[in-house]
Amino acid sequence: MKKAVVLLSGGIDSATALYMAKSRGFRPVALIFDYGQRHKKEIAFARRLAKSAKCRYKIIKLPLSFLSGSLIDKKIKVPVKRKPAEIKKKIPSTYVPARNIIFLSIAVSFAETSGAEAIFIGAHTEDFSGYPDCREDFFEAFKKAVSKGTKAGRRIKIFTPLINCGKKDIIKKALALGVPLGLTWSCYKGGKRPCGECDSCRFRSRAFRQLGLEDPYLSEKRTRR
Amino acid sequence: MKKAVVLLSGGIDSATALYMAKSRGFRPVALIFDYGQRHKKEIAFARRLAKSAKCRYKIIKLPLSFLSGSLIDKKIKVPVKRKPAEIKKKIPSTYVPARNIIFLSIAVSFAETSGAEAIFIGAHTEDFSGYPDCREDFFEAFKKAVSKGTKAGRRIKIFTPLINCGKKDIIKKALALGVPLGLTWSCYKGGKRPCGECDSCRFRSRAFRQLGLEDPYLSEKRTRR
Repeated sequence: MKKAVVLLSGGIDSATALYMAKSRGFRPVALIFDYGQRHKKEIAFARRLAKSAKCRYKIIKLPLSFLSGSLIDKKIKVPVKRKPAEIKKKIPSTYVPARNIIFLSIAVSFAETSGAEAIFIGAHTEDFSGYPDCREDFFEAFKKAVSKGTKAGRRIKIFTPLINCGKKDIIKKALALGVPLGLTWSCYKGGKRPCGECDSCRFRSRAFRQLGLEDPYLSEKRTRR
Repeated sequence: MKKAVVLLSGGIDSATALYMAKSRGFRPVALIFDYGQRHKKEIAFARRLAKSAKCRYKIIKLPLSFLSGSLIDKKIKVPVKRKPAEIKKKIPSTYVPARNIIFLSIAVSFAETSGAEAIFIGAHTEDFSGYPDCREDFFEAFKKAVSKGTKAGRRIKIFTPLINCGKKDIIKKALALGVPLGLTWSCYKGGKRPCGECDSCRFRSRAFRQLGLEDPYLSEKRTRR
């Protein structure tokens, strides 16, 4: 069975990417990053997701606290109640510079060492269009750099299966694949309950609403955890 | 004064890159990686180099121990007494997959957060031609990925001022810039004294020999530290 490395954050997108890797016949290993994110809570969710998918996982501690002025920096406020038009226009303060570049680089290194043939990342442009390292042209350029800069070179394929999907489409795919959405966490604030106001919460709840579905992580059972 | 991030390992190449950044009018900040390398000793040398260049530095701990089968893996023997032809043909076991990609990604992130305009890396192809992420075409591809994948985009320039130099040329440049070569460390084994047998030691001593110079780190004073 071919091996794949999956970047797993604990949110819907990466959970769906994990199940997609499985459905495409890969044996996934999940990389979970503990990088000083404010919503550290997502790590526990990622771990539970990996377990429920019966896949191996590694939690990688990256002390990125020297990157002040981003989601890592406790002094920065998570923006709330932003309108979709505003989100499209302005890169929010939740942006962690080059985060996907760092995560992907480590995934590449791990893929090469462990003999994995593929890397899956659940990034997509539509919702979080403010993040430059979620754009398709970035991934294409990065793939080229990897093919030049590693021993395994062209063997390692980087898959971005959700790159052109919106949150609604992703949830549909997730449901079709049996992703346990109740085990995902999206809120940037990482409080006891999802705040419902940050970009991440708003995109999520809007998508569920559009589908006429109840979000399992907003149910009473979930929020009591 | 423009800021630059310099990747500083403690060896001759990165020390020279640091002094080149200074001579080009940048105010450098050195990033020193503690990534589980066998020759951890180089970190202390890097720190001393930064201090002697009067530049700020950050030591970044990256737990890359999950990358088995490389310089990080204590079970792997450092190859010794390899001939130049062999070095050109075969990527050695000292190769850490995608190491420069990981280091550069973090440098990019830090450059973006701290407002630096440039990144300096002392990598070069001639001597360590076995490492794919020391090749010019990798750097070119990586620069493109960075310009696409970061907010600062094209503002951050990645300089590889030694890319086409051999060790002999680098030592010449270092001497011209006043790099304190006695404060550099190259040996992969990281013992009390340089082993004199690993690729890194051999390239270094050959270059000093070719220049008719004594290597200051082989002098009695140095090895007694």
